[in-house]
Amino acid sequence: MKRILSLLTDFGLTDPFVAEMKAVIFSICENVQIVDISHQVEKFDISMGAFLLNETVEYFPDGAIHVAVVDPGVGSDRRGIAVETERAIFVGPDNGLMIPAARSQKILHVYELTNRSLMRKEISATFHGRDIFAPVAAHLANGKSPRECGRELREYADSPFPSAKIEGKFWISEAVHVDGFGNIVTNLSRDLLKNSLSEKISLYVGGRQFSVRFVKTYSDLRAGEVGALFGSHGFLELACREKSAAARLRVSRGVPVRLLHGQESFEADS
Amino acid sequence: MKRILSLLTDFGLTDPFVAEMKAVIFSICENVQIVDISHQVEKFDISMGAFLLNETVEYFPDGAIHVAVVDPGVGSDRRGIAVETERAIFVGPDNGLMIPAARSQKILHVYELTNRSLMRKEISATFHGRDIFAPVAAHLANGKSPRECGRELREYADSPFPSAKIEGKFWISEAVHVDGFGNIVTNLSRDLLKNSLSEKISLYVGGRQFSVRFVKTYSDLRAGEVGALFGSHGFLELACREKSAAARLRVSRGVPVRLLHGQESFEADS
Amino acid sequence: MKRILSLLTDFGLTDPFVAEMKAVIFSICENVQIVDISHQVEKFDISMGAFLLNETVEYFPDGAIHVAVVDPGVGSDRRGIAVETERAIFVGPDNGLMIPAARSQKILHVYELTNRSLMRKEISATFHGRDIFAPVAAHLANGKSPRECGRELREYADSPFPSAKIEGKFWISEAVHVDGFGNIVTNLSRDLLKNSLSEKISLYVGGRQFSVRFVKTYSDLRAGEVGALFGSHGFLELACREKSAAARLRVSRGVPVRLLHGQESFEADS
Repeated sequence: MKRILSLLTDFGLTDPFVAEMKAVIFSICENVQIVDISHQVEKFDISMGAFLLNETVEYFPDGAIHVAVVDPGVGSDRRGIAVETERAIFVGPDNGLMIPAARSQKILHVYELTNRSLMRKEISATFHGRDIFAPVAAHLANGKSPRECGRELREYADSPFPSAKIEGKFWISEAVHVDGFGNIVTNLSRDLLKNSLSEKISLYVGGRQFSVRFVKTYSDLRAGEVGALFGSHGFLELACREKSAAARLRVSRGVPVRLLHGQESFEADS
Repeated sequence: MKRILSLLTDFGLTDPFVAEMKAVIFSICENVQIVDISHQVEKFDISMGAFLLNETVEYFPDGAIHVAVVDPGVGSDRRGIAVETERAIFVGPDNGLMIPAARSQKILHVYELTNRSLMRKEISATFHGRDIFAPVAAHLANGKSPRECGRELREYADSPFPSAKIEGKFWISEAVHVDGFGNIVTNLSRDLLKNSLSEKISLYVGGRQFSVRFVKTYSDLRAGEVGALFGSHGFLELACREKSAAARLRVSRGVPVRLLHGQESFEADS
Repeated sequence: MKRILSLLTDFGLTDPFVAEMKAVIFSICENVQIVDISHQVEKFDISMGAFLLNETVEYFPDGAIHVAVVDPGVGSDRRGIAVETERAIFVGPDNGLMIPAARSQKILHVYELTNRSLMRKEISATFHGRDIFAPVAAHLANGKSPRECGRELREYADSPFPSAKIEGKFWISEAVHVDGFGNIVTNLSRDLLKNSLSEKISLYVGGRQFSVRFVKTYSDLRAGEVGALFGSHGFLELACREKSAAARLRVSRGVPVRLLHGQESFEADS
């Protein structure tokens, strides 16, 4: 059976960095199906990479290997790790990038990458994606056990983003992502809110108050109307029909979003 | 034999939407070769998507499955369809997107996608590409018959773009595409014009008259010269050697193009 | 065993040109693994294409087939060639694009592409990538010998970029590439400089003098500091930690870079 191996990086698509990783992988393991998740994570943006990876891994079949490289600390003493979960193995830097996605599948073991026999002979100081993570992942795809990567770690870098939480009468959240359609995605999940939203909801986005309709899908909105809905990954998002809500509201990633808990009434506590 | 499955969307390459579709496909069907046609169709631009798909499908081997998702109506009552042609099966929204490409291969049957057993268990209101079209296509790649998708439809949304036509002494056409090189592609096909072009031709593009040389290939043009030629898909295009004709003429997609029929003489009829 | 076939073009990712090449390849050869090196070479920029290809091919397994298409002369009398090296076969236009990469693997034979039975029946004047190079490469992947492509050539277009050289007390080089992170890559290789760099080095970049630290990896630099290091391909580059050195120094590709030979002292010779 063919293993699925996914790649997520901030390398972009102009330089041949991703191709070099793939060339290394196919040199070691022929029988693997590579799927590109994204190579357009903002450079060095561990938080964005973690978000995109976390959104995506649930759709992969069991046994997938996920290689993720957003790695400002390459060549320093930051470690490389393999994270074994109930459904997959993650390979990449120990900087929190893979933790939200791995945690969503229950983390079983975390191993430090120290076994040189699983890496390229020459290891550059600037491109561990090609010289360490890709060959380790290819050997795992060939059936090596993650245990062979190195010693088990009890501590490792944590998730780069905080969970949404209740504070007084508000859900405290943020715009964790703005997708290519301009939808503003929060970290308020459907599970968290328990579908408790009324037809009209009020939010503070970046300090400004908005009262919007809560709808089921984009086409429930009128042309130009901004509304809220649960996106395809189960997170509350602000959307504007066939337009960019982010451009419309001049909101970018990282902006705080507060939602009144229970939605009985709505008062600013500034 | 491995089935070829193509993907065309307006999802872009930053978000993991395309990866999610691929993950779903490989979860259902291992033995499939995916080819990305384009994921950079302008958001919601059914006409551009239809043009790119139509250009491309003839080069695929028989038996290909083409999944196309430019889908502003997702979650509304627009239907999903599978279109069986003499050479391929197309899967996507019933909004005209797939019709020009399908028609070029002779449409045999159109089926509504209603068989829930071919879809993901949970169907989001905002991402039918992942939850309906990808899994249906994967089941078709596994050998399911398109008939199993649902009832046959007699009516479905038509092609989003008009054919070129003769009006008085002019061919009435438009700039249906500007490619990445800046070539302005019309919907005047070689078959339509029957190679009847003389060495010098005159066109109205967006109301302005141009008299240009009709040549065989880009390198027949002098540096900076704008000329006309039949592009690799057999459509008349305006090109500028190693430069963008679109930038040069300040022409964008959708601009009307008129060409004198027969080319004996040329007079404005404004 | 599955052959690896790489693609490098200046076609971009919006138009379906790359997909058409892949569709043609899979129509001829099912058992091939395609790896995209880059499709975002600057339009018509043979030198940039040659650089990226040259950086990448060493990581591929033996027996790879590399198809490269940056081809301003398409449809003219420029020839198509297949270049057989000790490790791979290169297929593309005879314009120098493939020569640096092929030379790095020792060129054994160069053949002109004239055997029509290896090409598509209809050959457009504007898209030899699809109509000639892709099908020839697919036939080679099927096991055809490069000898069957056509007669052997003794002369062919040379590499588009000059090697770095010593002139007086300077290494004369240039910024041959600016990567997606803004690192300024020169053609001064580690082999050439024989690791003779001191801790502090001085360079003239585009006429301005810089004195920078020579370090091992990006994270050895302080925030905002510009430094020099050997990148992952073994070339000296200027980098700025988590920032773009190119933007910082306002340097773009092609700018001359001079480095004092031996670094004993440093004097402008303007």
